[in-house]
Amino acid sequence: MINRFCKHQLWEVAPTLSAVAQGIQPAETVIKNAKLINVCTAEIQEGIDVAIAKGRIAYVGENADHCIGDETTVIKADGSYIAPGFLDGHIHVESSMLGVAEYARATVAHGTTGIYMDPHEICNVLGLDGVRIMDEDARRVPLKTMITTPSCVPAVPGFEDTGSAIGPDDIAETMTWDSVVGLGEMMNFPGILSGSEHAHGEVAETLKAGYSVTGHYSLPETDRGLNAYIASGICCCHESTRAEDALEKMRRGMYAMMREGSAWHDLAALAPVVAEGKVDSRFAVLVSDDNHPNTLVEKGHLDYLIRRAMEEGIDAVTAIQMCTINCATCFKMNDDLGSIAPGKCADIVFLKDLDSIEVARVLIDGEVVAENGRVLFAPEPFEYPEWAVHSVHVKDAITSASFAIAPQGLAADAAEAKVRVIGVMGGRVDDEERHLTVPAHDGLIESDVEADILKTFVFERHHETGTFGYGLTQGFGIKRGAMASTVAHDAHNLLVVGTNDEDMAMAANTLIESDGGMVVVADGEVLGHVPLPVAGLMSEKPAEEVSALVGRLEEAWAEIGCTMPSPFMTMALIPLACLPDLRLTNRGLVDCNTFSFVDLLVEE
Amino acid sequence: MINRFCKHQLWEVAPTLSAVAQGIQPAETVIKNAKLINVCTAEIQEGIDVAIAKGRIAYVGENADHCIGDETTVIKADGSYIAPGFLDGHIHVESSMLGVAEYARATVAHGTTGIYMDPHEICNVLGLDGVRIMDEDARRVPLKTMITTPSCVPAVPGFEDTGSAIGPDDIAETMTWDSVVGLGEMMNFPGILSGSEHAHGEVAETLKAGYSVTGHYSLPETDRGLNAYIASGICCCHESTRAEDALEKMRRGMYAMMREGSAWHDLAALAPVVAEGKVDSRFAVLVSDDNHPNTLVEKGHLDYLIRRAMEEGIDAVTAIQMCTINCATCFKMNDDLGSIAPGKCADIVFLKDLDSIEVARVLIDGEVVAENGRVLFAPEPFEYPEWAVHSVHVKDAITSASFAIAPQGLAADAAEAKVRVIGVMGGRVDDEERHLTVPAHDGLIESDVEADILKTFVFERHHETGTFGYGLTQGFGIKRGAMASTVAHDAHNLLVVGTNDEDMAMAANTLIESDGGMVVVADGEVLGHVPLPVAGLMSEKPAEEVSALVGRLEEAWAEIGCTMPSPFMTMALIPLACLPDLRLTNRGLVDCNTFSFVDLLVEE
Repeated sequence: MINRFCKHQLWEVAPTLSAVAQGIQPAETVIKNAKLINVCTAEIQEGIDVAIAKGRIAYVGENADHCIGDETTVIKADGSYIAPGFLDGHIHVESSMLGVAEYARATVAHGTTGIYMDPHEICNVLGLDGVRIMDEDARRVPLKTMITTPSCVPAVPGFEDTGSAIGPDDIAETMTWDSVVGLGEMMNFPGILSGSEHAHGEVAETLKAGYSVTGHYSLPETDRGLNAYIASGICCCHESTRAEDALEKMRRGMYAMMREGSAWHDLAALAPVVAEGKVDSRFAVLVSDDNHPNTLVEKGHLDYLIRRAMEEGIDAVTAIQMCTINCATCFKMNDDLGSIAPGKCADIVFLKDLDSIEVARVLIDGEVVAENGRVLFAPEPFEYPEWAVHSVHVKDAITSASFAIAPQGLAADAAEAKVRVIGVMGGRVDDEERHLTVPAHDGLIESDVEADILKTFVFERHHETGTFGYGLTQGFGIKRGAMASTVAHDAHNLLVVGTNDEDMAMAANTLIESDGGMVVVADGEVLGHVPLPVAGLMSEKPAEEVSALVGRLEEAWAEIGCTMPSPFMTMALIPLACLPDLRLTNRGLVDCNTFSFVDLLVEE
Repeated sequence: MINRFCKHQLWEVAPTLSAVAQGIQPAETVIKNAKLINVCTAEIQEGIDVAIAKGRIAYVGENADHCIGDETTVIKADGSYIAPGFLDGHIHVESSMLGVAEYARATVAHGTTGIYMDPHEICNVLGLDGVRIMDEDARRVPLKTMITTPSCVPAVPGFEDTGSAIGPDDIAETMTWDSVVGLGEMMNFPGILSGSEHAHGEVAETLKAGYSVTGHYSLPETDRGLNAYIASGICCCHESTRAEDALEKMRRGMYAMMREGSAWHDLAALAPVVAEGKVDSRFAVLVSDDNHPNTLVEKGHLDYLIRRAMEEGIDAVTAIQMCTINCATCFKMNDDLGSIAPGKCADIVFLKDLDSIEVARVLIDGEVVAENGRVLFAPEPFEYPEWAVHSVHVKDAITSASFAIAPQGLAADAAEAKVRVIGVMGGRVDDEERHLTVPAHDGLIESDVEADILKTFVFERHHETGTFGYGLTQGFGIKRGAMASTVAHDAHNLLVVGTNDEDMAMAANTLIESDGGMVVVADGEVLGHVPLPVAGLMSEKPAEEVSALVGRLEEAWAEIGCTMPSPFMTMALIPLACLPDLRLTNRGLVDCNTFSFVDLLVEE
């Protein structure tokens, strides 16, 4: 495998490194007097020097003075710690609502030097062309942005309309791209377990190319199903929520990616598996999966995860192994990444101490790219092609009349109706199918704001098919207004929830006008609006601005009565038909346990 | 990388494994109620079942009854231990004097399921054609015989004549062979340190192919030189003799292959590095390097090394990790080998207990290949091509007159001469240059048996060049007779040492007649003779027979007065010009510190 995420391939510069290590040729950079966090032996070595040339490490030892020439940059570590650059083994950049270059600006100062990005949100909207533009954006910044090709596009074929679809042939094609290093999370575990040719075909194309297949196995069953899933060639999984999930995966040679993102907090449950050295931790990895911009701005990235791991009883060196050498080994890139050792890429993080994990300086390929919390690179705004920033294509004009719900079978004179309601719960990915009675008149179903039951619509927005689905949602607790979002997993159609048809129409049209995003409207006024014109998922703005807009959006949710944490995240999952129990897509209500369409009206 | 050392590639059988794990399809074999030595988490799990299909593991868990069908073979482990098949990360099969298939017969019953073989002895004699025949022989037995292409043929270019020579182009070619998985030990560390294009070129061709470069760094220096060597892309080394050698390699991400072979015993010195869990042991590996047939027959192979590691304070699970998952990871083959986990090859060793490490049963690719110390396969004798078993081509007939030493500059009337003598020492690879006085008459140098100074000759035997070198050796302590060997590292020319010219001629001619081997002669009688017709290095006979012949040879050495352990091994190093101090090749005496030819006579 040619790792393009290096300034030079090792074999191109090996003679130079050999000469530098011996003092025959000067280094480009020498780090003096650091405490090395040695992830190879799990030791801390004091008084270590490192010499760097051609983007790679030539020497690690007690004294690199012999590598210093007239033009060598000498960095005095003065006894601070150095660790390998942090790697995030599973991340959807789109969740940050930032372009990749901007995501890099938000994370590199926190010690992140590489990410394994599964761009499955943009792929649902724009297909592999969308993946390509994220790749192009990424190439403009030092962050090593490894791609795992999205595997499940659409997430649940036959139950929704996406902008694109991916199959084994696409996977085979992307395995020849130089930035692709694996397959994105294989969420279709039912397909793997049932022998689906499509799912196994995608895995096969990845294995044939010698790359890693990343997983998503969210069943609590850790026996037959888990064995079947791992035996199918899937090497890691970030969906453990209980200690036994993670342990049973590690025991079977699967990397347990322990997740701590903005919305999902698994570390408290999972850390005990590797705390106190109970088991060999080589198969444990830290990942964030999904981070909102405000988490990145306020808490950090992998530095924050290391702190969290330490709070949960994992020692600092083990925690750092979990986002360096272990992660690199999972992706078979440990020859180049994940340790501070001769021949490896000089991706190095300076830490002020091992309590705060505060990042003082970051090197990527031997270049200082961040210092004291600020990145030293500032690319121009990425020039997205027109089709990427105009991706909201709803066929029919949306007005308040669009939100009439007139189900077949509802008598014109009925004053109420028994209906299926999607019951959402804050901070949880699952929902509940509830059977409740709502008011009706003139053959139309109405929201029941008192009972917190709200009309919910999903409009297809990729190919102007004119299709839409409707239903009812309970749980947000809003008293007025409406919300809309084009971040609506995984098809990312236009999702609208509200108390009244006028505000719902205004919310929808606000997003159509802004080419996508998230909005809260009340009484004809826009209270919060995050425009996300890039595929309807991401902003072109800097992290701080997007973070502020998201903060304003959360306030707007609260103003109309919602007390749920990150309610826009919970709302965005309403259409995700691979999660239980009841979901709404642009094709209608889906029973996600039986995988069948169901009527809004409950037959008595 | 396509790993041909599997019955089936994972992607070909993944749907079957998935079905078997779930009980939808029956397993071919189920192991019931074992104690699993889990090398992934370093735990021992009791009451574990394993289901196998298509040569791979489908299920590992508490109960595989659902995988049992009418035709499933059920193996009752009855609480005995199961471990992944043992892997030897660095081995020269030629040292065993056995063909590869016979080597497999000698080792598989000891739990060995895979070896990383560096066939550099045969390559010196027969070139890549020799490597190919060993590969062909290996394919007839279940032992997974991974090849690392010999890198240093000849060992010291310009100072000896070998049968063949290897360069970067040859390396590039072999990287396309399906049985090659790396580069053999890069003994030319001086070349790596001095920037040799030849040495770096061979490394580069291997790295480009994505394979591992195995090392040989025998300097006691662990700072500049070691850094330079590792930075050049070399991932492992079996030449550590002190704890600090191994530790400094591991700290720099190099696999420290801890060696315990027939002649070299490094574990006592190296084991403390990983004993008692002092450091993360993922970069520690057990290897044998060179084993004679009698060691394999009497002591075993990796089972013996595990016992030795345990005697030196390493716990059983760590020791087993060191010859399973750690080794497989070193060669980037851990997706298929090195652990008992779903999807991996069903290479499984049954151990009666964790004290004796006595191997009760061995499975390779799901087939039982050995039981209770006996292998269950018996290939026909390998049909070597004529050129492989007639490789001793000495140009001129050898008679007692061939052993006259008449150095230029020795006066015809001199009664004695001051000469350079090779001083050998039992059990050590280095020798000493000694300046001593020996008798002379008629312009000829004579042996001085009293002083244990013996005439020594090396005759070129590959291309009938007629060249030969002569010198004198001290240290074997024989009182009569002569010895000869075509195992004479690394060029493997015809080496003769003796007390008198008649026995020396007889020893040489005995080997010429037997197409190579090792012989001890005294008073016109052959006392011990191991014919090694395959390249002059290996026998075609079974391990037990060869072991008996070697035993008889050792007795013969003792009969003529030598008390050194394994003297034939010490003798075979006399021509190895990459070792200090003074060596004799077919081109003459070599000062191995200055790398220059020197005269026999010392100028006063």
